[in-house]
Amino acid sequence: MADRRIVVIGGVAGGATAASKARRCCPDAEIEIYDQDEFISYAGCGLPYFIGGHSPNWRRLLARTPDEFLKRQGIRVFLRHRVNSIDTANKLLRVVDLEGVSELSIEYDVLILATGAAPVVPPIPGRDLEGVFVLRTLTQALEMKSFIDLQAPHRAVIVGGGAIGLEMCEALRRLGMEVHLVELMDHVLPPLDADLAGKLGEHLEKNGVRLHLGEKVEGLEGGGNGRVRRVATSGGALEAELVLLSIGIRPVSDLARQAGIELGARGAIRVDAGMRTSAPDVLACGDCATTFHRVTGKEGWIPLGSTARKQGRVAGETAAGNEASFPGVLGTFILKCFDMAAGKTGLSAVEAREAGWEAESVTLEDTVLPGYYTRDLPHLIARVTVEKGTGRVLGAQVVGDYAAQVDKRLDVFSMSLAGGLTAGDLSSLDLAYAPPFSRPVDIPIVAGNLAEAKVLGRVCTCDAEGLE
Amino acid sequence: MADRRIVVIGGVAGGATAASKARRCCPDAEIEIYDQDEFISYAGCGLPYFIGGHSPNWRRLLARTPDEFLKRQGIRVFLRHRVNSIDTANKLLRVVDLEGVSELSIEYDVLILATGAAPVVPPIPGRDLEGVFVLRTLTQALEMKSFIDLQAPHRAVIVGGGAIGLEMCEALRRLGMEVHLVELMDHVLPPLDADLAGKLGEHLEKNGVRLHLGEKVEGLEGGGNGRVRRVATSGGALEAELVLLSIGIRPVSDLARQAGIELGARGAIRVDAGMRTSAPDVLACGDCATTFHRVTGKEGWIPLGSTARKQGRVAGETAAGNEASFPGVLGTFILKCFDMAAGKTGLSAVEAREAGWEAESVTLEDTVLPGYYTRDLPHLIARVTVEKGTGRVLGAQVVGDYAAQVDKRLDVFSMSLAGGLTAGDLSSLDLAYAPPFSRPVDIPIVAGNLAEAKVLGRVCTCDAEGLE
Repeated sequence: MADRRIVVIGGVAGGATAASKARRCCPDAEIEIYDQDEFISYAGCGLPYFIGGHSPNWRRLLARTPDEFLKRQGIRVFLRHRVNSIDTANKLLRVVDLEGVSELSIEYDVLILATGAAPVVPPIPGRDLEGVFVLRTLTQALEMKSFIDLQAPHRAVIVGGGAIGLEMCEALRRLGMEVHLVELMDHVLPPLDADLAGKLGEHLEKNGVRLHLGEKVEGLEGGGNGRVRRVATSGGALEAELVLLSIGIRPVSDLARQAGIELGARGAIRVDAGMRTSAPDVLACGDCATTFHRVTGKEGWIPLGSTARKQGRVAGETAAGNEASFPGVLGTFILKCFDMAAGKTGLSAVEAREAGWEAESVTLEDTVLPGYYTRDLPHLIARVTVEKGTGRVLGAQVVGDYAAQVDKRLDVFSMSLAGGLTAGDLSSLDLAYAPPFSRPVDIPIVAGNLAEAKVLGRVCTCDAEGLE
Repeated sequence: MADRRIVVIGGVAGGATAASKARRCCPDAEIEIYDQDEFISYAGCGLPYFIGGHSPNWRRLLARTPDEFLKRQGIRVFLRHRVNSIDTANKLLRVVDLEGVSELSIEYDVLILATGAAPVVPPIPGRDLEGVFVLRTLTQALEMKSFIDLQAPHRAVIVGGGAIGLEMCEALRRLGMEVHLVELMDHVLPPLDADLAGKLGEHLEKNGVRLHLGEKVEGLEGGGNGRVRRVATSGGALEAELVLLSIGIRPVSDLARQAGIELGARGAIRVDAGMRTSAPDVLACGDCATTFHRVTGKEGWIPLGSTARKQGRVAGETAAGNEASFPGVLGTFILKCFDMAAGKTGLSAVEAREAGWEAESVTLEDTVLPGYYTRDLPHLIARVTVEKGTGRVLGAQVVGDYAAQVDKRLDVFSMSLAGGLTAGDLSSLDLAYAPPFSRPVDIPIVAGNLAEAKVLGRVCTCDAEGLE
């Protein structure tokens, strides 16, 4: 154990956490991180906030530098080193030093794959024009920021209305740009029900974002200077000096696939609860790995920075020879966009029915603080999905003012899923109440009352004062 | 069933909710509320905010007027009617109309006792002086507000550092008074551990409240005008034109006791999960009734407006002949005081040990948002108590900035108790994460990591970036 060599490929969220945890468990192991990028251990989720100017100093995004990894933890970091192949039989990596272009042969006792995910770039003409960006790595963010600083683009087109696209709408509006959002679906944030996502869409428009829903980008046109100047969509043409392609991401699993390691959902590297892959002593964690959906009971691929860190912890323990397991995720996500927040945990009614449940939903819309406490009443809409008959909570979606603590209610619903609670259980939750925090009967409890009545086939109205 | 007469005594939180729920379930029943006060269905928890000027219009505290009860729900409300006795054998009440001073005999089929709680007034000289207040009812709040408006007191002494005492410190400071807080214990907010409550104490002092801890009030002295002018304590004398006695409350259960109805914890009316008392067809709910503590498994008396409404709902269902039950509480509470919040759910380590558990606690102090997102970093301290061996979560205390969403973390811990989760379960919670809402590994997850390590006898450090 003392001389165990733990090698980690990729050092952003999952990889950095795995290496740190392995060090905590194995003080004497040799631990190395290889990453082809020039940065590791940074806040990938923070990139839109760096670009939007919340934090103009990009160094604040760094959690730990390679030097700190070495000095504090004795973890050696090799930046700009690309792993070209894995020989799982001989436990050898072929690594290219991208600066020196020499090829190295690296041995491991345990290998942790934390290769992350990469943006999907649609095969459209003009995607290589200057001014066309994807936003996934700190390097890409620095390039985009530098372009904005130097070229001062006035008009931006964001392609794709998922989380990154929406966060970037806010960021680019903060910088004063005219922003167009092009989304193939008929509503933004596709994992949400259309009517709830529609509230977010209205809010985007109120904040000056021009929505182009149900439109497809067909090509990008450049000017004589090699820079993008127009986006052709199925609905027309949009002038733009900056284009962000944020249509989605895919797991980076080619290296694993080429090494004969089994892939799973969406082409991610298949892992068990201990983060073990199909190859002996090869683990995977973070955005490159599959995860288990605790509501559906099925393997899925739901890449998120928070999940990556939890998986990284487990991978670090397993690498150290300890027993550890990650029970999976509930599909919880949230985002802020201007003054609104929107998120989800578990399944929507449509998803629940597709997965084989008889499911019902209840929706309530309410203010979240007492009217006597503040005149500025934050407001939200919550939709809870339960199984018919049992009333088991299957999921929830919440959309509302940022000040309405959408996150707090989503966390309560997420905890309901973790605890296997029913609508009836929600009715009697003992949540933290005082007037500066909520109304006396908080949203999840009212939702439980409504859902229980619906499951029992009763009519029910209930408000947050407890009066019907 | 059609002619069932449901009579409710007391109409603030529990009683108003019970009557409303009974109406929803029994469209044809006769439903009446009797209350000796001149107001019902108001936000008792809002009184400090009315006095402090959040809402100068007291009518905003009213959820529903007697007229609205009648017109919307066909519920007849009799204000200023005091019930003098209950004859459970003949299902008769003796009621005095305090305006007319006539005595009425009122029949019931089902009786719901929602008589609430009353302030404990210590037997000290001078407690009847003008300028000495308790704060429990809207009437008392109006008297106090009127006194403040007319007499413009400069100096106030608040006796008792529980929730009302602390909320009133803020309210009276907002009105510009010099405020002294006298508390018998050596720290404010006695249900919290002393060191955590100490943080709140420091914050009170920073906001100009002078603390007199470990001191006992011995008497109140008046001037020639019959108004209070000095408070004598074991530590000296404090000049004051206004005194608030907020040393505690007791259940109002004399009427029930005189009728031979069984009392339970702390002299509250003993109820089962359906809110039934020992007398046939007599129910009780709200601050006058006992409740079941889901962590200790014992009967207790934990009066709170949010619980009253949940119990009222169940009482209304039971009164209607439906099956309903209230599983009990977790002892969750929270309060805001100036720019801090503090609260608790479940048991502290001391309480857990007293109840027979081998318990351990872990404490963490951290900021709750990423440093790159905001420079103004809200901060909190969380302490989680778990059972040795199993790691079962037994309780949590959280103290921190109001902006740090102490309530959100308490709700997660409360949900952990509701779901019977362990420290290990906390480690893998799927909470709603994006940079505007939390750091990637939120407080309860970090706490779970720390607690799990402690239970397993390991050393562990973990931070909210996932790095050790």
